[in-house]
Amino acid sequence: MNPFKGLPEATLIEDPSDLEPCRRDESHLRGTLPLALVKPHGPAALRELVRRAKAEGFGLVPRGAGTGKAGGCLPTERTVVVDFSAWPGEARVSPQDLCLRAPVSVLLRDVKAAAEAHGLFYPPDPNSWESCSLGGTLATNAGGPNACKYGMTRHWVLAVEALLEDGELHTFGISSVKANAGPSLGQLLIGSEGIFGFILGATLRLTPLPRERTTLLLPVKRWEDLLDLPGRLCGAGFLPSAFEFFDPAVLAELRAHGPEEARRLPGEALAILEFDERGSTSDAFLEGLLDLLGPVAEGLRVASDVRQREGIWAVRRMTSAFLKERHPKKVSEDIVVPRSRLRDFFAGLDRLGFPAVTYGHLGDGNLHVNLLAAGETDPALLDRQLMDLFRLAIDLGGTLSGEHGIGLAKREAFLALSDPAQIQALRALKRALDPQNIFNPGKVL
Amino acid sequence: MNPFKGLPEATLIEDPSDLEPCRRDESHLRGTLPLALVKPHGPAALRELVRRAKAEGFGLVPRGAGTGKAGGCLPTERTVVVDFSAWPGEARVSPQDLCLRAPVSVLLRDVKAAAEAHGLFYPPDPNSWESCSLGGTLATNAGGPNACKYGMTRHWVLAVEALLEDGELHTFGISSVKANAGPSLGQLLIGSEGIFGFILGATLRLTPLPRERTTLLLPVKRWEDLLDLPGRLCGAGFLPSAFEFFDPAVLAELRAHGPEEARRLPGEALAILEFDERGSTSDAFLEGLLDLLGPVAEGLRVASDVRQREGIWAVRRMTSAFLKERHPKKVSEDIVVPRSRLRDFFAGLDRLGFPAVTYGHLGDGNLHVNLLAAGETDPALLDRQLMDLFRLAIDLGGTLSGEHGIGLAKREAFLALSDPAQIQALRALKRALDPQNIFNPGKVL
Repeated sequence: MNPFKGLPEATLIEDPSDLEPCRRDESHLRGTLPLALVKPHGPAALRELVRRAKAEGFGLVPRGAGTGKAGGCLPTERTVVVDFSAWPGEARVSPQDLCLRAPVSVLLRDVKAAAEAHGLFYPPDPNSWESCSLGGTLATNAGGPNACKYGMTRHWVLAVEALLEDGELHTFGISSVKANAGPSLGQLLIGSEGIFGFILGATLRLTPLPRERTTLLLPVKRWEDLLDLPGRLCGAGFLPSAFEFFDPAVLAELRAHGPEEARRLPGEALAILEFDERGSTSDAFLEGLLDLLGPVAEGLRVASDVRQREGIWAVRRMTSAFLKERHPKKVSEDIVVPRSRLRDFFAGLDRLGFPAVTYGHLGDGNLHVNLLAAGETDPALLDRQLMDLFRLAIDLGGTLSGEHGIGLAKREAFLALSDPAQIQALRALKRALDPQNIFNPGKVL
Repeated sequence: MNPFKGLPEATLIEDPSDLEPCRRDESHLRGTLPLALVKPHGPAALRELVRRAKAEGFGLVPRGAGTGKAGGCLPTERTVVVDFSAWPGEARVSPQDLCLRAPVSVLLRDVKAAAEAHGLFYPPDPNSWESCSLGGTLATNAGGPNACKYGMTRHWVLAVEALLEDGELHTFGISSVKANAGPSLGQLLIGSEGIFGFILGATLRLTPLPRERTTLLLPVKRWEDLLDLPGRLCGAGFLPSAFEFFDPAVLAELRAHGPEEARRLPGEALAILEFDERGSTSDAFLEGLLDLLGPVAEGLRVASDVRQREGIWAVRRMTSAFLKERHPKKVSEDIVVPRSRLRDFFAGLDRLGFPAVTYGHLGDGNLHVNLLAAGETDPALLDRQLMDLFRLAIDLGGTLSGEHGIGLAKREAFLALSDPAQIQALRALKRALDPQNIFNPGKVL
């Protein structure tokens, strides 16, 4: 008997050709063919799916907009993909509570827009913010350039509504930042990539929408000077809302082969800084900032209108695609290195000796290291190179994933490089909350 | 055989009279006499304590500075108090990483001072901030007035070092806000009141120290006007770093019997607002603010120097002691009500009919409801009154603890009023991480 027939409140897709798209996300991986794809429209579908999953021994794989970069939503053996894109509801702002309630199906773009319509701001801004679903950002604890000032998704979630293994929806948290009634199950679920249960909705904390914004394009004379700058700025009272960078190799490629405007960029390395606090467009603020930046800068540009700001950010936004075009078989990584160890990291990366260029979020040490020759490298050698890269980051007090998560892509490295007691504790939690292993089996652990 | 003799790296206290102080915290409760009190100085003590606790079947109760308000550190039957006041180490700031590493034994006051010495800020500010230990704030996810802008302790913790049931110390997290390598065990431990393991140290996230501050004493013509104000301010771009309030009954008592300066206060209710962002002392900022506050205010006062600011905060700080002196047998509660439901809450509180006055954190809906006649009320009736109060908060979407936690004081109410599935999930986690129930037994669950 087909275990998916007659599922209430759901759309069922079983034709193998229609199932092909859900075997992909934005990682290089491809999932196995799932048993089916189900789009639930109501709680009865979830209740029944959980019941049948337990009875028939298949797994449930959550899927949002499919923009993940770690394979977290890809089907594994004997699984059903649960696609939340049709989950009902819309983003609703409660200005008095300074919060927003939304179902996971809403796009992050629309979450942010709903807040802005009330003069309010939801900070998380992963690169995919225009196309990713809120659900994906909750499952992966999404970051983005703003994280260096505002923190990650978990810092902005007040409550989550989640499907647990009893087949029911439960709410953890309230619509206030103050809530200390027991350990936080909500925080355990955020960033757990669906292995303990599935998040169906959330109440998000908001803050007043920034009314001023200053963006700077900062080519530096000496690459080394850039590495100290985040700490020096903060010590002087300047907290950037974004601090992106491009290492000398990326800047050299941009200059040699990039778009017209990138060809004229001076300096040894490049940064983009943004400040969004009140007064950040004032003369006094800029003077204080330029006192600090002047000595290291070469041809600093300050955006004074939206067009100039867009021009600056265009350089950042096109970088990934530009490098991909130049190096079609590159692999982009997502490690973190404490900012005090950046010099040691880049010295270590040189010693590893494989062709790599780096750009990303200098403000929080989240580095997208691009292994340019990955596609032409023997897979076993590439695996060793990646493990060497992860170990270098971890040995310096960093970690192997800053914002993308573990999913399928980094599962083996995560298991091999983590404290065994951490893995043991996570496995115990997994058994406690999902004893039959129905939620996103084969991911993370 | 005495199971505590010969414990390495530890100071042992066994004399019953010396054990008396650890039977108290700042709640109204008194713990049982513990088997002993141990002050560990190193990891060997912890390893051996865990081993013996498992072998001999006694529990371990963590204790910091004893300033908790929910009995979380009080000994229960057959337990040893593990007092972390002698745990070695000191607060160390890494300005480049915008973080601070400290052991749990350091007082929060010294954590904040260490950050300030580098021009940096650690926001959490529970009322006990001058006397509480960092460890207590981590175990309880401490809040304070600043929480309405900055969030709770958990929003400022990057990594924790914790003792798990294997008897070893493990670190969860890194010294960057970006870290997505698996579900967050650290976030599960923060605010768990020691029931899954004990936190021994933490890496805290810092932000630039505010350089400007404006404090306002705001008597309002009409009590009702105060209740909308947090949402209206935020929608207009003004996010207070503190928004404290006193209801009409508290203001009336202050006016009738309080200190000289309180006797001249006009208005129907009272608020204290503080803003600490850049530009918050500028004329433009104040003008914008006064446009909003003017229509509801009666005799607004703006602090323009430290002395005036201290004068304003003195009113807030003396309120608890003042009410305690007038009503020695009062009980102060710590509920939360979403700000959009404050009117409904106060209407409901009137209907409950017992004598209560309220002050606290209006900016996040965390209300300290004081039951004035608690001490003269039949205990069974008082329990029913407290349950009615908690139910009122919960029915409005709030919760029974905003910042103090559950501990012993609210355990029964927490178990009775929570979603049974939440309790079941927490119990499953407890069994998973602490199968022999050695960590703070009898608390929370």
